[in-house]
Amino acid sequence: MLKKQSVIALITDFGLQDGYAGVMKGVIANINPSANVIDVSNNIEPQNVFQAAYVLNSSYAYFPKGTIHVVVVDPGVGSARKILCLKTEDYMFLAPDNGVLSFVIAHEESASIREVTNGKLFLPKLSNTFHGRDVFAPVAAHLSKGVNRKELGEKIDKIKKIDLPKPILSPDGKLTAEIIYVDSFGNLITNVNKEVIDRMKVEAERVPITMGRRRINGICSAYTDVGDNEALAIFGSSGYLEISVNLGSAGDVLKLKKGDKLTLGN
Amino acid sequence: MLKKQSVIALITDFGLQDGYAGVMKGVIANINPSANVIDVSNNIEPQNVFQAAYVLNSSYAYFPKGTIHVVVVDPGVGSARKILCLKTEDYMFLAPDNGVLSFVIAHEESASIREVTNGKLFLPKLSNTFHGRDVFAPVAAHLSKGVNRKELGEKIDKIKKIDLPKPILSPDGKLTAEIIYVDSFGNLITNVNKEVIDRMKVEAERVPITMGRRRINGICSAYTDVGDNEALAIFGSSGYLEISVNLGSAGDVLKLKKGDKLTLGN
Amino acid sequence: MLKKQSVIALITDFGLQDGYAGVMKGVIANINPSANVIDVSNNIEPQNVFQAAYVLNSSYAYFPKGTIHVVVVDPGVGSARKILCLKTEDYMFLAPDNGVLSFVIAHEESASIREVTNGKLFLPKLSNTFHGRDVFAPVAAHLSKGVNRKELGEKIDKIKKIDLPKPILSPDGKLTAEIIYVDSFGNLITNVNKEVIDRMKVEAERVPITMGRRRINGICSAYTDVGDNEALAIFGSSGYLEISVNLGSAGDVLKLKKGDKLTLGN
Repeated sequence: MLKKQSVIALITDFGLQDGYAGVMKGVIANINPSANVIDVSNNIEPQNVFQAAYVLNSSYAYFPKGTIHVVVVDPGVGSARKILCLKTEDYMFLAPDNGVLSFVIAHEESASIREVTNGKLFLPKLSNTFHGRDVFAPVAAHLSKGVNRKELGEKIDKIKKIDLPKPILSPDGKLTAEIIYVDSFGNLITNVNKEVIDRMKVEAERVPITMGRRRINGICSAYTDVGDNEALAIFGSSGYLEISVNLGSAGDVLKLKKGDKLTLGN
Repeated sequence: MLKKQSVIALITDFGLQDGYAGVMKGVIANINPSANVIDVSNNIEPQNVFQAAYVLNSSYAYFPKGTIHVVVVDPGVGSARKILCLKTEDYMFLAPDNGVLSFVIAHEESASIREVTNGKLFLPKLSNTFHGRDVFAPVAAHLSKGVNRKELGEKIDKIKKIDLPKPILSPDGKLTAEIIYVDSFGNLITNVNKEVIDRMKVEAERVPITMGRRRINGICSAYTDVGDNEALAIFGSSGYLEISVNLGSAGDVLKLKKGDKLTLGN
Repeated sequence: MLKKQSVIALITDFGLQDGYAGVMKGVIANINPSANVIDVSNNIEPQNVFQAAYVLNSSYAYFPKGTIHVVVVDPGVGSARKILCLKTEDYMFLAPDNGVLSFVIAHEESASIREVTNGKLFLPKLSNTFHGRDVFAPVAAHLSKGVNRKELGEKIDKIKKIDLPKPILSPDGKLTAEIIYVDSFGNLITNVNKEVIDRMKVEAERVPITMGRRRINGICSAYTDVGDNEALAIFGSSGYLEISVNLGSAGDVLKLKKGDKLTLGN
């Protein structure tokens, strides 16, 4: 399957001006001309590991089986931080050991992890600042050509994890939630999924949602359920409850940001 | 032809940070691994249907015959708005029924339109906020593999249209035009094409063009016809008259924007 | 080799909103459906020839042999400026004659240059403002299909060059260097490579580096050699000495920009 499709999906904080992501694709094309490299995002905020972890988590399962997901948000580049290859039933993930795989590994019980140490799979001349080009790209390309994972390096058990803040259900039935991501539309994505709402035993269509002085009543099923420029709550495409503004940016209108809290229930 | 080349061209307002356009490509690669997905623009302003319509109109005819043009600028996502498949002699267009196909359909007399309703061609689990991933991407991929358009849904006649503001020629021979698009160079693209100038019966090289207090005399044939940082008028690559600044941004220098008016003639 | 891989690498100042780079890919796909077009950067600052030259120089050698590098940063479009095809042992370069190939040609002694004049290889209808679409894209596509370079036009000898400012070593052993590029991480890339440091006969780990009132002692080998938000000097991925801030932007923290000077040595 890997050899047939050989999709390599890319998440980096390289931006699009300097050519860094393009160079990675040049290196990949040199090793495996038939690899299909798909940009998921090269516009992760510089060194924002949490953001990369979130974008990876909301995207990876939509790719073909056998896709190699490469994440290069790597503030520890050139230090002793490890480079990981995580294998799940359907995918491989190449990433630095800085917590960026935390959300993926939480879903994937059968994951097997290796540390990538085999310098024969790297570019011959290794920089200390751009392992995307010198390590991640060539290793991904070799894997996409069918190189056996055992050649990468030894199996390891422990990797770094970052916490996804969890919503807190108080004894009186109120839920304290948190904004974990603000997308480019200004949608405020919370850490509340449908299971959490089910556990609250409230009517989703009526549950009051409070953010600062602002209150929304109930969860809608389409942006257009409210008027233009009005705020609403809706389950978004990644399965989390989002606060949005119809035809506008909730981030701008409500002046809320990542880390801000909201309350569900009376 | 479709099966051979299977180019899918993408116009969205998803931006490049959150991975939304990348996920669409993952879905497409899963259904048709040999599709060639080309980004036309993922940086349409959020929900700016007119801008998407303009970019589509200035780009689509340069793609190979059989290209499937997919436009996901879709403020009505999750509501009862229709999803359209428009077929012309050379292309297919998938887009929400919000006017984004207005300029295309004005050129394409033989267009045939279907409403896309066949859920078997969608992803199994449908969100209310991301039909780019759940509907447009899989339908485009199936079409690129040769699925017959008749399977999409029923033929329809009427679709929503938005107006391209037309230049107005007054009895005394003056033309009132309008800026319809400002590109990333700051070029001010007007709604005046060569036919309109021909109808005016003026000498293009000398016609005075007035914007507020500013006046330009005549239409140039190259940016370098004027000095550095000087304003000029020129027929641009989409066939419309543009106001530009040599080595600068006309938008910044002249402080003009979309919707502003200008006058041609004495 | 060209026909087998047919990679076309793209550097432009077209940005990603207006669809200009996407249209180039449509034109290429129409002529050579199997070309693999890789974006190196479409976000060069408008008309910034030096920036494009720098990005080209730091990227081109990582691409497969036979890659056609296309650079469309072309403030002289529509004027009498030439369009060049430069052939080196491993690559072809298509670019306007405005100095953008200066750094490449400095490394490539065996380069052979032709002026591109054969209109049969252009789009039939030529605009005066968008030769990326009308000239560069179709010529690159034809070359990628194996069209002989001799068909492009006549050989020429002289092309325009821009100077890379050189570091100056004073008789007392001090080196005056200059920032030539600031990347999107805020890394300040200087014109000092390892050979220059070797010639200074200083200990790289201890050499004092002065920028305004700020002083750094020695060249590090990893960002993490210093604390969070501290400045350091390091040889970057393009082989030049860079001033960086661990987990931060040196451009923002040190308030330095392209053209600013720094001194190495006591």
